[in-house]
Amino acid sequence: MDRRKFLKSTALGGAAASATLAAPAYAQGNRTLTLVTTWGRGLAGVHDAAERVANNITAMSDGSLTIDLKAAGELVGAFEVFDAVTSGQADMYHGADYYFLSQHPGYAFFTAVPFGMTAQELVNWYYHDGGHELHDELGAIFGLKSFIAGNTGAQAGGWFKKEITSPEDFVGLKFRMPGLGGAALGRLGASVQNIPGAEVYQALAQGAIDGTEWIGPWADEKAGFQEITKIYYAAGYHEPGAALSLATNRDVFESLSPAHQKIIEVASGEAHQWSLSQFLANNGAALQRLQAAGVKVATFPDSVWDAFGKAAQEVLNENMSDDLFKKIYDSAIPSMRASSGWLQQSSGVYVSQRDRVLG
Amino acid sequence: MDRRKFLKSTALGGAAASATLAAPAYAQGNRTLTLVTTWGRGLAGVHDAAERVANNITAMSDGSLTIDLKAAGELVGAFEVFDAVTSGQADMYHGADYYFLSQHPGYAFFTAVPFGMTAQELVNWYYHDGGHELHDELGAIFGLKSFIAGNTGAQAGGWFKKEITSPEDFVGLKFRMPGLGGAALGRLGASVQNIPGAEVYQALAQGAIDGTEWIGPWADEKAGFQEITKIYYAAGYHEPGAALSLATNRDVFESLSPAHQKIIEVASGEAHQWSLSQFLANNGAALQRLQAAGVKVATFPDSVWDAFGKAAQEVLNENMSDDLFKKIYDSAIPSMRASSGWLQQSSGVYVSQRDRVLG
Repeated sequence: MDRRKFLKSTALGGAAASATLAAPAYAQGNRTLTLVTTWGRGLAGVHDAAERVANNITAMSDGSLTIDLKAAGELVGAFEVFDAVTSGQADMYHGADYYFLSQHPGYAFFTAVPFGMTAQELVNWYYHDGGHELHDELGAIFGLKSFIAGNTGAQAGGWFKKEITSPEDFVGLKFRMPGLGGAALGRLGASVQNIPGAEVYQALAQGAIDGTEWIGPWADEKAGFQEITKIYYAAGYHEPGAALSLATNRDVFESLSPAHQKIIEVASGEAHQWSLSQFLANNGAALQRLQAAGVKVATFPDSVWDAFGKAAQEVLNENMSDDLFKKIYDSAIPSMRASSGWLQQSSGVYVSQRDRVLG
Repeated sequence: MDRRKFLKSTALGGAAASATLAAPAYAQGNRTLTLVTTWGRGLAGVHDAAERVANNITAMSDGSLTIDLKAAGELVGAFEVFDAVTSGQADMYHGADYYFLSQHPGYAFFTAVPFGMTAQELVNWYYHDGGHELHDELGAIFGLKSFIAGNTGAQAGGWFKKEITSPEDFVGLKFRMPGLGGAALGRLGASVQNIPGAEVYQALAQGAIDGTEWIGPWADEKAGFQEITKIYYAAGYHEPGAALSLATNRDVFESLSPAHQKIIEVASGEAHQWSLSQFLANNGAALQRLQAAGVKVATFPDSVWDAFGKAAQEVLNENMSDDLFKKIYDSAIPSMRASSGWLQQSSGVYVSQRDRVLG
């Protein structure tokens, strides 16, 4: 696969177009950038994160850099945003980078990989242990400048019509799960589908899928999955801290003033924290409401976690022939282990003791 | 104690001074705000957080709002920054709000309270469950506009000359610990002192204190405590996620344009995340270096955690006669419990399974 060559020509096309059409406007006065997203308008949490970063960029620049947010379907479809921005049709996208694994498997690490980083471990890596530089290296191939700009936290294991008691229960199950987590589920025999968030409810209601993961109690409740299925797994293996990204066409980004570039960078980082905490602050109460509405909260048995772990490693291994994928893996996983070790010794011990003492 | 009345008059003095001296400059062109901090210049992590937020404000505003950072001692002493900003001598401070418990005990919640929130729980509360509004209510009393703008993560239990095997070992121990955590340690019979970060090494070296907590492995190693004592407790009860704040004189803040106000707000939030991840990304490797240098890493026994828990609750209870303290407590603690419940069920279960499966 010579995707680098293909995309280089695409990016050059985009650059030429923007140089011809837009450069004069960029050099003076106020600018408006079009932001497309992978989220339906109003989709709980994920659209909020896109809106947060867009509004803060506009406000901090006093309107000199105005972001015009187009939700999925308003300019291009959810999964078309990558091509729209690399080609110059739109200026930026906000989305989950693992939707674009067909562009490069390395994008998995900038949303989530199965058995990978929690949100905190990812932030540690991203800002202080090489993660952002690798995101940048990946973006340069496609003519993008990317920053993480949202996070769902650890995603729930998802919605099922019957309980999962062994790995064999996944054989033949039609299940919605994107990313390398989905690929791992396929190895257990599931028929895995990737469906944009705004379309999942309908697919489940119509029986096109038997089950789905989406995000967590708060966003899932708003999506309404409890109206269709009643068995919910709180912990999952597939997205332990799923980041969302803001990616700007690189030619557009480089044509911005240093102040505007910094505004995009800082607004993205702030949105990451704000978004993560939005999900985490709302999930506990939402889970209680779901339980009150008759949803059974379940836990995968160890045998299923073992199977998840084996499948996840196989999926990671089969991408290791891509040099950049391996380079990112070799940076991310040791960083995760080091972060995790300290977190267990400090806040892990603390929380255990707090809960024991406070009862 | 009628501190509200006292401080109202102080704040009015500050407002009058800034209106007389500075208002014309504020109305036009570029502005420079003086930022004083509770940190010695270059103090690992904490000074970095102040520098991060200052540099990002300056850069995002393209210098139209330039922050002039004065470290502790360069304009005023570490613990004098609160008075400097409320009086109008300086425009902003970056520091740990629990240094100012003598101004109001409610400030404890915006750094850390013993047996209180982890950094993630605090962020959830701050942005989505009433925390920031309460920080604002507290700041209004003193003429301040505050945002959290840094976090050390869960602080280590600290440095001791001999191991702690029972609560009685604290009797008569001269120990450095600020905030309500320090007050709780006093209830165990310790002689508790509050000493600015830049002065702790000397106090320990000269025997003015028997032991100290500071932050965690990375910052503590840079401070050099391992040169003096060799017993280190990784987990502590006193500061499970210590936030740092950026507080601006309220008259100054309100005289700023909405764009500049937003820049301060977003830069603060971004610095909180960046700072927290700086500590957490560096602590694991630092702990290994400390151990290699002969430091023994220890864990408090359950009997000591029990005593910490009892003392912490007593200290919280004795402040409950202050209405605003109680209001903040009644907001923070239920929020912490709800956040913690979900985190245990999702990422808690995930991390346990990941570590079990990956080995």
